[in-house]
Amino acid sequence: MELDLAALRTFAAVIDEGTFEAAARTLHITPSAVSQRIKALEQQVGRVLVQRVKPARATDSGRVVLTLARQVAHLEQETMASLNPNTAQTSTLPLVVNADSLSTWMIPALARLAPEHRVLFDLHREDEYHSTALLREGTVMAAVTSVSEPVQGCTVETLGSMRYRALCSREFADHWFPDGPTAEALAVAPMLDFDRKDELQARFLRGFTRRRVHPPRHFVPGSSAFSDAVHYGLGWGLLPELHTGSDHGLVELDPARPIDVPLYWQRWKLESPLLTALTGAVREGAREALR
Amino acid sequence: MELDLAALRTFAAVIDEGTFEAAARTLHITPSAVSQRIKALEQQVGRVLVQRVKPARATDSGRVVLTLARQVAHLEQETMASLNPNTAQTSTLPLVVNADSLSTWMIPALARLAPEHRVLFDLHREDEYHSTALLREGTVMAAVTSVSEPVQGCTVETLGSMRYRALCSREFADHWFPDGPTAEALAVAPMLDFDRKDELQARFLRGFTRRRVHPPRHFVPGSSAFSDAVHYGLGWGLLPELHTGSDHGLVELDPARPIDVPLYWQRWKLESPLLTALTGAVREGAREALR
Repeated sequence: MELDLAALRTFAAVIDEGTFEAAARTLHITPSAVSQRIKALEQQVGRVLVQRVKPARATDSGRVVLTLARQVAHLEQETMASLNPNTAQTSTLPLVVNADSLSTWMIPALARLAPEHRVLFDLHREDEYHSTALLREGTVMAAVTSVSEPVQGCTVETLGSMRYRALCSREFADHWFPDGPTAEALAVAPMLDFDRKDELQARFLRGFTRRRVHPPRHFVPGSSAFSDAVHYGLGWGLLPELHTGSDHGLVELDPARPIDVPLYWQRWKLESPLLTALTGAVREGAREALR
Repeated sequence: MELDLAALRTFAAVIDEGTFEAAARTLHITPSAVSQRIKALEQQVGRVLVQRVKPARATDSGRVVLTLARQVAHLEQETMASLNPNTAQTSTLPLVVNADSLSTWMIPALARLAPEHRVLFDLHREDEYHSTALLREGTVMAAVTSVSEPVQGCTVETLGSMRYRALCSREFADHWFPDGPTAEALAVAPMLDFDRKDELQARFLRGFTRRRVHPPRHFVPGSSAFSDAVHYGLGWGLLPELHTGSDHGLVELDPARPIDVPLYWQRWKLESPLLTALTGAVREGAREALR
Protein backbone atom coordinates (compact mmCIF):
# COMPACT_ATOMS: atom_id res chain seq x y z
CA MET A 1 0.00 0.00 0.00
CA GLU A 2 1.46 3.33 -0.99
CA LEU A 3 0.07 6.17 1.02
CA ASP A 4 0.07 9.70 -0.31
CA LEU A 5 2.36 12.06 1.59
CA ALA A 6 0.05 15.02 1.03
CA ALA A 7 -2.87 13.01 2.40
CA LEU A 8 -0.91 12.06 5.52
CA ARG A 9 0.05 15.68 6.06
CA THR A 10 -3.55 16.75 5.63
CA PHE A 11 -4.76 14.14 8.10
CA ALA A 12 -2.26 15.31 10.73
CA ALA A 13 -3.30 18.94 10.13
CA VAL A 14 -6.98 18.12 10.66
CA ILE A 15 -6.22 16.50 14.03
CA ASP A 16 -3.82 19.29 15.06
CA GLU A 17 -6.09 22.15 14.07
CA GLY A 18 -9.37 20.53 15.07
CA THR A 19 -11.45 21.26 11.97
CA PHE A 20 -11.23 20.75 8.20
CA GLU A 21 -11.50 24.54 7.75
CA ALA A 22 -8.57 25.29 10.06
CA ALA A 23 -6.47 22.54 8.42
CA ALA A 24 -7.27 24.07 5.03
CA ARG A 25 -6.04 27.48 6.22
CA THR A 26 -2.79 26.03 7.56
CA LEU A 27 -2.12 24.08 4.36
CA HIS A 28 -3.27 26.92 2.08
CA ILE A 29 -5.76 24.68 0.27
CA THR A 30 -9.58 24.68 0.19
CA PRO A 31 -11.70 22.85 2.80
CA SER A 32 -13.13 20.66 0.04
CA ALA A 33 -9.59 19.60 -0.95
CA VAL A 34 -8.98 18.64 2.68
CA SER A 35 -12.18 16.63 2.71
CA GLN A 36 -11.28 14.84 -0.56
CA ARG A 37 -7.80 13.91 0.66
CA ILE A 38 -9.12 12.52 3.93
CA LYS A 39 -11.78 10.49 2.11
CA ALA A 40 -9.19 9.13 -0.32
CA LEU A 41 -6.88 8.19 2.55
CA GLU A 42 -9.72 6.45 4.38
CA GLN A 43 -10.62 4.49 1.24
CA GLN A 44 -7.00 3.48 0.73
CA VAL A 45 -6.62 2.32 4.34
CA GLY A 46 -10.11 0.82 4.37
CA ARG A 47 -11.02 2.39 7.71
CA VAL A 48 -12.61 5.56 9.03
CA LEU A 49 -9.71 7.65 10.37
CA VAL A 50 -11.36 10.86 11.56
CA GLN A 51 -14.29 11.24 13.94
CA ARG A 52 -16.20 14.19 12.49
CA VAL A 53 -16.76 15.94 15.82
CA LYS A 54 -15.59 19.32 17.15
CA PRO A 55 -12.65 19.23 17.60
CA ALA A 56 -11.97 16.42 15.09
CA ARG A 57 -10.47 13.31 16.69
CA ALA A 58 -8.64 10.31 15.31
CA THR A 59 -10.41 6.94 15.49
CA ASP A 60 -8.49 3.96 16.89
CA SER A 61 -7.35 3.09 13.36
CA GLY A 62 -6.69 6.77 12.77
CA ARG A 63 -4.25 6.85 15.67
CA VAL A 64 -2.06 4.21 14.05
CA VAL A 65 -1.98 6.15 10.80
CA LEU A 66 -1.41 9.40 12.70
CA THR A 67 1.77 8.05 14.29
CA LEU A 68 3.01 7.17 10.82
CA ALA A 69 2.01 10.62 9.53
CA ARG A 70 3.93 12.37 12.33
CA GLN A 71 7.05 10.31 11.86
CA VAL A 72 7.04 10.75 8.09
CA ALA A 73 6.41 14.49 8.44
CA HIS A 74 9.25 14.82 10.88
CA LEU A 75 11.73 12.88 8.73
CA GLU A 76 10.65 14.86 5.68
CA GLN A 77 11.11 18.18 7.53
CA GLU A 78 14.57 17.16 8.70
CA THR A 79 15.64 15.99 5.26
CA MET A 80 14.47 19.23 3.66
CA ALA A 81 16.22 21.24 6.36
CA SER A 82 19.52 19.43 5.81
CA LEU A 83 19.25 19.91 2.04
CA ASN A 84 18.40 23.60 2.38
CA PRO A 85 20.02 24.78 5.61
CA ASN A 86 19.54 28.44 4.76
CA THR A 87 15.83 28.54 4.01
CA ALA A 88 13.31 29.52 6.64
CA GLN A 89 12.07 25.90 6.81
CA THR A 90 11.53 25.02 10.46
CA SER A 91 10.85 21.76 12.25
CA THR A 92 8.11 21.44 14.85
CA LEU A 93 8.73 19.31 17.92
CA PRO A 94 5.50 18.25 19.65
CA LEU A 95 6.19 17.43 23.31
CA VAL A 96 4.15 16.73 26.40
CA VAL A 97 5.41 17.95 29.76
CA ASN A 98 4.00 17.64 33.28
CA ALA A 99 2.80 20.96 34.73
CA ASP A 100 5.51 21.44 37.38
CA SER A 101 8.34 20.79 34.91
CA LEU A 102 6.73 23.14 32.40
CA SER A 103 6.58 25.94 34.96
CA THR A 104 10.14 25.46 36.24
CA TRP A 105 13.09 23.91 34.35
CA MET A 106 11.63 23.03 30.94
CA ILE A 107 11.69 26.37 29.09
CA PRO A 108 15.32 27.14 30.06
CA ALA A 109 16.24 23.61 28.88
CA LEU A 110 14.46 24.06 25.55
CA ALA A 111 15.97 27.52 25.08
CA ARG A 112 19.40 25.87 24.79
CA LEU A 113 18.25 24.23 21.59
CA ALA A 114 16.62 27.13 19.81
CA PRO A 115 19.53 29.26 18.56
CA GLU A 116 21.41 26.72 16.42
CA HIS A 117 18.38 24.68 15.26
CA ARG A 118 15.42 26.18 13.48
CA VAL A 119 12.88 24.54 15.71
CA LEU A 120 9.39 25.29 16.98
CA PHE A 121 8.00 23.73 20.14
CA ASP A 122 4.44 22.49 20.26
CA LEU A 123 4.09 21.91 24.00
CA HIS A 124 1.25 20.08 25.71
CA ARG A 125 0.66 20.20 29.44
CA GLU A 126 -0.79 16.95 30.72
CA ASP A 127 -0.65 14.71 33.74
CA GLU A 128 1.14 11.38 33.43
CA TYR A 129 -1.95 9.41 32.47
CA HIS A 130 -2.73 11.52 29.45
CA SER A 131 0.87 12.10 28.45
CA THR A 132 1.45 8.44 27.61
CA ALA A 133 -1.79 8.46 25.59
CA LEU A 134 -0.48 11.41 23.56
CA LEU A 135 2.76 9.50 22.91
CA ARG A 136 0.92 6.33 21.98
CA GLU A 137 -1.37 8.06 19.50
CA GLY A 138 1.49 9.91 17.88
CA THR A 139 0.41 13.44 18.87
CA VAL A 140 3.76 14.09 20.54
CA MET A 141 7.26 12.76 19.84
CA ALA A 142 8.55 12.86 23.39
CA ALA A 143 7.37 13.27 26.97
CA VAL A 144 8.57 14.36 30.38
CA THR A 145 6.60 11.98 32.56
CA SER A 146 6.69 10.00 35.80
CA VAL A 147 5.77 6.83 33.88
CA SER A 148 8.85 4.60 33.69
CA GLU A 149 7.47 1.82 31.48
CA PRO A 150 8.24 2.67 27.86
CA VAL A 151 5.27 3.36 25.61
CA GLN A 152 5.31 1.08 22.55
CA GLY A 153 7.76 2.41 19.98
CA CYS A 154 9.54 4.64 22.53
CA THR A 155 12.77 4.55 24.48
CA VAL A 156 12.91 5.77 28.06
CA GLU A 157 15.65 7.25 30.25
CA THR A 158 15.76 8.67 33.78
CA LEU A 159 16.00 12.47 34.10
CA GLY A 160 16.27 12.75 37.88
CA SER A 161 13.82 13.54 40.64
CA MET A 162 11.78 16.60 41.45
CA ARG A 163 11.80 17.23 45.19
CA TYR A 164 8.58 18.43 46.84
CA ARG A 165 8.07 19.75 50.37
CA ALA A 166 4.79 19.95 52.33
CA LEU A 167 4.34 23.65 53.11
CA CYS A 168 1.82 26.11 54.50
CA SER A 169 1.75 29.78 55.49
CA ARG A 170 2.67 30.93 59.00
CA GLU A 171 -0.94 32.06 59.68
CA PHE A 172 -2.31 28.74 58.44
CA ALA A 173 0.04 26.83 60.77
CA ASP A 174 -0.94 29.04 63.74
CA HIS A 175 -4.63 28.47 63.06
CA TRP A 176 -4.75 24.78 62.10
CA PHE A 177 -1.62 23.33 63.71
CA PRO A 178 -1.33 25.03 67.15
CA ASP A 179 0.18 21.76 68.48
CA GLY A 180 2.05 21.01 65.26
CA PRO A 181 0.73 19.02 62.29
CA THR A 182 -0.73 16.11 64.27
CA ALA A 183 -2.79 13.39 62.58
CA GLU A 184 -5.91 14.87 64.21
CA ALA A 185 -5.14 18.36 62.92
CA LEU A 186 -4.33 17.07 59.42
CA ALA A 187 -7.67 15.29 59.26
CA VAL A 188 -9.54 18.62 59.34
CA ALA A 189 -7.09 21.23 57.97
CA PRO A 190 -7.85 22.17 54.33
CA MET A 191 -5.49 20.52 51.85
CA LEU A 192 -4.61 21.66 48.32
CA ASP A 193 -4.71 19.27 45.37
CA PHE A 194 -3.74 20.29 41.83
CA ASP A 195 -6.64 18.27 40.39
CA ARG A 196 -8.40 14.97 41.09
CA LYS A 197 -5.50 12.95 39.72
CA ASP A 198 -2.98 14.60 42.05
CA GLU A 199 -1.92 11.94 44.58
CA LEU A 200 1.03 13.79 46.07
CA GLN A 201 -0.65 15.24 49.15
CA ALA A 202 -2.43 11.96 49.90
CA ARG A 203 0.93 10.16 49.66
CA PHE A 204 2.53 12.58 52.13
CA LEU A 205 -0.44 12.18 54.50
CA ARG A 206 -0.29 8.38 54.44
CA GLY A 207 3.44 8.36 55.16
CA PHE A 208 3.14 11.00 57.87
CA THR A 209 0.00 9.94 59.75
CA ARG A 210 0.26 6.16 59.08
CA ARG A 211 -3.51 6.03 58.62
CA ARG A 212 -6.19 7.03 56.14
CA VAL A 213 -7.41 10.58 56.67
CA HIS A 214 -9.72 12.50 54.33
CA PRO A 215 -9.24 16.23 54.91
CA PRO A 216 -11.33 18.82 53.07
CA ARG A 217 -9.71 19.62 49.72
CA HIS A 218 -9.34 22.64 47.46
CA PHE A 219 -8.52 22.00 43.79
CA VAL A 220 -6.14 24.53 42.19
CA PRO A 221 -5.04 23.41 38.72
CA GLY A 222 -2.19 25.81 37.93
CA SER A 223 1.43 25.71 39.13
CA SER A 224 1.73 29.34 40.14
CA ALA A 225 -1.88 29.49 41.40
CA PHE A 226 -1.16 26.42 43.55
CA SER A 227 1.87 28.17 45.01
CA ASP A 228 -0.21 31.35 45.55
CA ALA A 229 -2.84 29.28 47.36
CA VAL A 230 -0.19 27.98 49.78
CA HIS A 231 1.18 31.49 50.37
CA TYR A 232 -2.30 32.99 50.87
CA GLY A 233 -3.17 30.30 53.40
CA LEU A 234 -5.99 28.54 51.57
CA GLY A 235 -4.46 25.20 52.49
CA TRP A 236 -1.25 23.23 52.82
CA GLY A 237 0.27 21.48 49.81
CA LEU A 238 3.44 20.06 48.30
CA LEU A 239 5.50 22.60 46.35
CA PRO A 240 8.50 21.77 44.17
CA GLU A 241 11.76 23.07 45.67
CA LEU A 242 12.49 24.54 42.24
CA HIS A 243 9.44 26.78 42.70
CA THR A 244 10.02 27.97 46.22
CA GLY A 245 13.79 28.06 46.63
CA SER A 246 14.90 27.90 50.27
CA ASP A 247 13.86 31.42 51.29
CA HIS A 248 10.13 30.88 50.95
CA GLY A 249 8.92 32.17 54.32
CA LEU A 250 6.60 29.16 54.65
CA VAL A 251 6.27 26.55 57.39
CA GLU A 252 7.32 23.02 56.47
CA LEU A 253 5.09 20.29 57.93
CA ASP A 254 7.91 17.74 58.21
CA PRO A 255 11.38 18.76 57.04
CA ALA A 256 12.48 15.11 57.38
CA ARG A 257 9.91 14.00 54.83
CA PRO A 258 10.35 15.54 51.39
CA ILE A 259 8.83 13.61 48.49
CA ASP A 260 10.98 12.89 45.44
CA VAL A 261 9.11 12.27 42.19
CA PRO A 262 11.30 10.58 39.55
CA LEU A 263 10.86 11.93 36.04
CA TYR A 264 11.54 10.11 32.79
CA TRP A 265 12.14 11.13 29.20
CA GLN A 266 10.24 9.00 26.72
CA ARG A 267 10.89 9.55 23.00
CA TRP A 268 10.08 7.90 19.73
CA LYS A 269 12.62 5.39 18.44
CA LEU A 270 13.47 7.40 15.37
CA GLU A 271 16.77 8.26 13.75
CA SER A 272 16.47 12.01 14.01
CA PRO A 273 19.34 14.42 14.63
CA LEU A 274 16.87 16.98 15.96
CA LEU A 275 15.28 14.59 18.43
CA THR A 276 18.78 13.62 19.52
CA ALA A 277 19.75 17.26 20.02
CA LEU A 278 16.51 17.85 21.95
CA THR A 279 17.23 14.85 24.15
CA GLY A 280 20.67 16.28 24.88
CA ALA A 281 19.23 19.68 25.85
CA VAL A 282 16.55 18.15 28.08
CA ARG A 283 19.07 15.81 29.71
CA GLU A 284 21.41 18.74 30.46
CA GLY A 285 18.60 20.95 31.77
CA ALA A 286 17.34 18.12 33.97
CA ARG A 287 20.82 17.39 35.32
CA GLU A 288 21.17 20.98 36.52
CA ALA A 289 17.64 21.32 37.91
CA LEU A 290 16.69 17.87 39.22
CA ARG A 291 18.24 15.54 41.77
CA MET B 1 -41.42 13.17 39.97
CA GLU B 2 -39.61 13.05 43.29
CA LEU B 3 -35.93 12.53 42.89
CA ASP B 4 -33.85 11.00 45.64
CA LEU B 5 -31.33 13.41 47.17
CA ALA B 6 -28.83 10.62 47.83
CA ALA B 7 -29.08 9.52 44.20
CA LEU B 8 -28.47 13.09 42.96
CA ARG B 9 -25.45 13.38 45.23
CA THR B 10 -24.14 10.04 43.99
CA PHE B 11 -24.60 11.06 40.37
CA ALA B 12 -22.66 14.29 40.91
CA ALA B 13 -19.88 12.36 42.70
CA VAL B 14 -19.54 9.93 39.77
CA ILE B 15 -19.07 12.81 37.32
CA ASP B 16 -16.72 14.68 39.69
CA GLU B 17 -14.54 11.71 40.56
CA GLY B 18 -14.63 10.05 37.14
CA THR B 19 -15.42 6.45 38.18
CA PHE B 20 -18.01 4.58 40.26
CA GLU B 21 -15.18 3.30 42.49
CA ALA B 22 -13.83 6.78 43.24
CA ALA B 23 -17.36 8.09 43.89
CA ALA B 24 -17.91 5.18 46.29
CA ARG B 25 -14.74 6.10 48.21
CA THR B 26 -15.78 9.74 48.49
CA LEU B 27 -19.28 8.85 49.70
CA HIS B 28 -18.10 6.02 51.96
CA ILE B 29 -20.44 3.50 50.30
CA THR B 30 -19.73 0.46 48.13
CA PRO B 31 -19.29 0.67 44.34
CA SER B 32 -22.33 -1.58 43.91
CA ALA B 33 -24.44 0.86 45.97
CA VAL B 34 -23.26 3.64 43.63
CA SER B 35 -24.23 1.55 40.63
CA GLN B 36 -27.69 0.77 42.08
CA ARG B 37 -28.41 4.43 42.88
CA ILE B 38 -27.42 5.55 39.40
CA LYS B 39 -29.55 2.84 37.77
CA ALA B 40 -32.52 3.78 39.96
CA LEU B 41 -32.08 7.47 39.09
CA GLU B 42 -31.89 6.63 35.38
CA GLN B 43 -35.07 4.57 35.60
CA GLN B 44 -36.84 7.36 37.45
CA VAL B 45 -35.82 9.97 34.90
CA GLY B 46 -36.34 7.55 32.03
CA ARG B 47 -33.01 8.42 30.39
CA VAL B 48 -29.41 7.22 30.46
CA LEU B 49 -27.55 9.85 32.51
CA VAL B 50 -23.97 8.54 32.65
CA GLN B 51 -21.75 7.51 29.76
CA ARG B 52 -19.84 4.54 31.17
CA VAL B 53 -16.44 5.63 29.85
CA LYS B 54 -13.23 6.58 31.66
CA PRO B 55 -13.61 9.18 33.04
CA ALA B 56 -17.40 8.89 33.34
CA ARG B 57 -19.28 11.65 31.51
CA ALA B 58 -22.82 12.96 31.71
CA THR B 59 -25.06 12.36 28.68
CA ASP B 60 -27.05 15.30 27.28
CA SER B 61 -29.95 14.37 29.58
CA GLY B 62 -27.45 13.78 32.36
CA ARG B 63 -26.22 17.37 32.10
CA VAL B 64 -29.67 18.73 32.83
CA VAL B 65 -30.01 16.52 35.91
CA LEU B 66 -26.43 17.37 36.93
CA THR B 67 -27.23 21.08 37.07
CA LEU B 68 -30.14 20.26 39.37
CA ALA B 69 -27.93 17.99 41.49
CA ARG B 70 -25.31 20.74 41.93
CA GLN B 71 -27.85 23.37 42.84
CA VAL B 72 -29.63 21.12 45.33
CA ALA B 73 -26.31 20.03 46.85
CA HIS B 74 -25.23 23.62 47.22
CA LEU B 75 -28.48 24.74 48.84
CA GLU B 76 -28.42 21.71 51.13
CA GLN B 77 -24.83 22.44 52.20
CA GLU B 78 -25.65 26.06 52.93
CA THR B 79 -28.74 25.19 54.91
CA MET B 80 -26.85 22.66 57.01
CA ALA B 81 -24.05 25.15 57.57
CA SER B 82 -26.47 27.83 58.77
CA LEU B 83 -28.19 25.34 61.10
CA ASN B 84 -24.88 24.09 62.52
CA PRO B 85 -22.43 26.98 62.24
CA ASN B 86 -19.88 25.33 64.51
CA THR B 87 -19.51 21.94 62.87
CA ALA B 88 -16.75 21.25 60.36
CA GLN B 89 -19.33 21.17 57.54
CA THR B 90 -17.85 23.02 54.57
CA SER B 91 -19.29 24.21 51.27
CA THR B 92 -17.55 23.58 47.98
CA LEU B 93 -17.61 26.28 45.31
CA PRO B 94 -16.83 24.91 41.83
CA LEU B 95 -15.51 27.73 39.60
CA VAL B 96 -13.90 28.02 36.20
CA VAL B 97 -11.24 30.65 35.64
CA ASN B 98 -9.19 31.58 32.57
CA ALA B 99 -5.49 30.73 32.89
CA ASP B 100 -4.11 34.28 33.16
CA SER B 101 -6.58 35.28 35.88
CA LEU B 102 -5.85 32.05 37.77
CA SER B 103 -2.13 32.77 37.76
CA THR B 104 -2.46 36.43 38.78
CA TRP B 105 -5.32 38.04 40.70
CA MET B 106 -7.71 35.15 41.39
CA ILE B 107 -6.13 33.42 44.40
CA PRO B 108 -5.65 36.69 46.36
CA ALA B 109 -9.31 37.51 45.60
CA LEU B 110 -10.53 34.11 46.79
CA ALA B 111 -8.35 34.29 49.90
CA ARG B 112 -10.48 37.23 51.11
CA LEU B 113 -13.41 34.85 51.41
CA ALA B 114 -11.81 31.90 53.16
CA PRO B 115 -11.40 33.03 56.80
CA GLU B 116 -14.99 33.87 57.70
CA HIS B 117 -16.69 31.26 55.49
CA ARG B 118 -15.92 27.57 55.68
CA VAL B 119 -15.50 27.17 51.98
CA LEU B 120 -13.51 24.95 49.62
CA PHE B 121 -12.67 25.99 46.07
CA ASP B 122 -12.90 23.50 43.24
CA LEU B 123 -11.15 25.47 40.51
CA HIS B 124 -11.07 24.59 36.83
CA ARG B 125 -8.71 26.20 34.36
CA GLU B 126 -10.28 26.47 30.93
CA ASP B 127 -10.36 28.77 27.96
CA GLU B 128 -13.52 30.75 27.29
CA TYR B 129 -15.07 28.18 24.96
CA HIS B 130 -14.95 25.38 27.49
CA SER B 131 -15.75 27.55 30.48
CA THR B 132 -19.26 28.33 29.25
CA ALA B 133 -19.78 24.60 28.58
CA LEU B 134 -18.86 23.87 32.22
CA LEU B 135 -21.38 26.50 33.37
CA ARG B 136 -24.07 25.17 31.07
CA GLU B 137 -23.69 21.57 32.19
CA GLY B 138 -23.67 22.55 35.86
CA THR B 139 -20.11 21.48 36.66
CA VAL B 140 -19.30 24.96 37.95
CA MET B 141 -21.43 27.62 39.63
CA ALA B 142 -19.55 30.63 38.32
CA ALA B 143 -16.94 31.62 35.78
CA VAL B 144 -14.36 34.30 35.07
CA THR B 145 -14.61 34.48 31.31
CA SER B 146 -14.34 36.81 28.34
CA VAL B 147 -17.78 35.70 27.15
CA SER B 148 -20.25 38.52 27.78
CA GLU B 149 -23.48 36.76 26.70
CA PRO B 150 -25.03 35.15 29.77
CA VAL B 151 -25.21 31.36 29.77
CA GLN B 152 -28.79 30.16 30.31
CA GLY B 153 -29.67 30.36 34.01
CA CYS B 154 -26.79 32.73 34.78
CA THR B 155 -26.35 36.42 35.45
CA VAL B 156 -23.35 38.31 34.09
CA GLU B 157 -21.45 41.40 35.21
CA THR B 158 -18.30 43.19 33.99
CA LEU B 159 -15.14 42.72 36.08
CA GLY B 160 -12.77 45.00 34.17
CA SER B 161 -10.08 44.45 31.57
CA MET B 162 -6.79 42.61 31.65
CA ARG B 163 -4.14 44.61 29.78
CA TYR B 164 -1.64 42.71 27.65
CA ARG B 165 1.54 44.02 26.01
CA ALA B 166 3.46 42.48 23.09
CA LEU B 167 6.94 41.75 24.45
CA CYS B 168 10.17 40.00 23.57
CA SER B 169 13.68 39.70 25.03
CA ARG B 170 16.42 42.18 24.12
CA GLU B 171 18.40 39.43 22.29
CA PHE B 172 15.31 38.38 20.39
CA ALA B 173 14.69 41.98 19.28
CA ASP B 174 18.34 42.40 18.20
CA HIS B 175 18.20 39.20 16.15
CA TRP B 176 14.75 39.38 14.56
CA PHE B 177 13.92 43.09 14.60
CA PRO B 178 17.19 44.88 13.70
CA ASP B 179 15.08 47.55 11.92
CA GLY B 180 12.28 47.37 14.47
CA PRO B 181 9.22 45.11 14.33
CA THR B 182 8.33 45.71 10.68
CA ALA B 183 5.59 43.70 8.95
CA GLU B 184 8.30 41.82 7.02
CA ALA B 185 10.18 40.93 10.22
CA LEU B 186 7.00 39.88 12.01
CA ALA B 187 6.12 37.52 9.17
CA VAL B 188 9.17 35.36 9.94
CA ALA B 189 10.00 35.95 13.63
CA PRO B 190 8.80 33.08 15.89
CA MET B 191 5.59 33.92 17.76
CA LEU B 192 4.30 32.36 21.01
CA ASP B 193 0.74 31.12 21.33
CA PHE B 194 -0.68 29.67 24.54
CA ASP B 195 -2.54 26.99 22.58
CA ARG B 196 -4.42 26.70 19.28
CA LYS B 197 -7.38 28.67 20.63
CA ASP B 198 -5.21 31.65 21.64
CA GLU B 199 -6.06 34.50 19.26
CA LEU B 200 -4.32 37.30 21.13
CA GLN B 201 -1.07 37.40 19.15
CA ALA B 202 -2.91 37.11 15.83
CA ARG B 203 -5.11 40.03 16.90
CA PHE B 204 -2.09 42.17 17.73
CA LEU B 205 -0.47 41.25 14.41
CA ARG B 206 -3.55 42.17 12.37
CA GLY B 207 -3.85 45.52 14.10
CA PHE B 208 -0.15 46.25 13.82
CA THR B 209 0.68 45.06 10.28
CA ARG B 210 -2.75 45.69 8.73
CA ARG B 211 -2.42 42.46 6.72
CA ARG B 212 -2.52 38.71 7.20
CA VAL B 213 0.84 37.27 8.18
CA HIS B 214 1.48 33.69 9.32
CA PRO B 215 4.67 33.60 11.37
CA PRO B 216 6.08 30.32 12.73
CA ARG B 217 4.47 29.54 16.09
CA HIS B 218 5.50 27.89 19.36
CA PHE B 219 2.71 26.60 21.63
CA VAL B 220 3.37 27.05 25.36
CA PRO B 221 0.26 26.20 27.42
CA GLY B 222 1.18 27.51 30.88
CA SER B 223 1.09 31.09 32.19
CA SER B 224 4.51 31.09 33.83
CA ALA B 225 6.04 28.90 31.09
CA PHE B 226 4.70 31.38 28.50
CA SER B 227 6.34 34.23 30.38
CA ASP B 228 9.58 32.18 30.66
CA ALA B 229 9.47 31.56 26.90
CA VAL B 230 9.33 35.33 26.27
CA HIS B 231 12.19 35.99 28.70
CA TYR B 232 14.35 33.17 27.24
CA GLY B 233 13.83 34.50 23.73
CA LEU B 234 11.91 31.61 22.19
CA GLY B 235 9.49 34.06 20.64
CA TRP B 236 7.49 37.23 21.15
CA GLY B 237 4.09 37.12 22.83
CA LEU B 238 1.49 39.09 24.76
CA LEU B 239 1.96 39.08 28.52
CA PRO B 240 -0.51 40.42 31.07
CA GLU B 241 0.77 43.58 32.79
CA LEU B 242 -0.16 41.90 36.07
CA HIS B 243 2.45 39.24 35.32
CA THR B 244 5.31 41.43 34.24
CA GLY B 245 4.92 44.63 36.21
CA SER B 246 6.65 47.61 34.62
CA ASP B 247 10.25 46.61 35.42
CA HIS B 248 10.34 43.55 33.18
CA GLY B 249 13.53 44.22 31.20
CA LEU B 250 11.76 43.23 27.97
CA VAL B 251 11.32 45.09 24.69
CA GLU B 252 7.79 46.18 23.81
CA LEU B 253 6.89 45.81 20.14
CA ASP B 254 4.48 48.75 20.16
CA PRO B 255 3.96 50.65 23.42
CA ALA B 256 1.04 52.51 21.80
CA ARG B 257 -0.84 49.27 21.18
CA PRO B 258 -1.67 47.33 24.35
CA ILE B 259 -4.58 44.90 24.09
CA ASP B 260 -7.32 45.04 26.72
CA VAL B 261 -9.33 41.85 27.22
CA PRO B 262 -12.61 42.47 29.09
CA LEU B 263 -13.47 39.83 31.68
CA TYR B 264 -16.91 38.94 32.96
CA TRP B 265 -18.29 37.17 36.00
CA GLN B 266 -21.04 34.70 35.16
CA ARG B 267 -22.85 32.98 38.04
CA TRP B 268 -25.90 30.84 38.57
CA LYS B 269 -29.12 32.68 39.39
CA LEU B 270 -29.43 31.13 42.83
CA GLU B 271 -30.32 32.66 46.19
CA SER B 272 -27.12 31.77 47.98
CA PRO B 273 -25.40 33.91 50.62
CA LEU B 274 -22.13 32.13 49.86
CA LEU B 275 -22.31 32.78 46.12
CA THR B 276 -23.14 36.40 46.94
CA ALA B 277 -20.13 36.66 49.26
CA LEU B 278 -17.93 35.05 46.59
CA THR B 279 -19.21 37.52 44.02
CA GLY B 280 -18.29 40.35 46.37
CA ALA B 281 -14.76 39.03 46.89
CA VAL B 282 -14.19 38.49 43.17
CA ARG B 283 -15.59 41.94 42.34
CA GLU B 284 -13.29 43.59 44.88
CA GLY B 285 -10.23 41.59 43.75
CA ALA B 286 -10.96 42.45 40.13
CA ARG B 287 -11.44 46.15 40.92
CA GLU B 288 -7.97 46.33 42.43
CA ALA B 289 -6.22 44.23 39.78
CA LEU B 290 -8.02 44.97 36.52
CA ARG B 291 -8.67 48.15 34.57
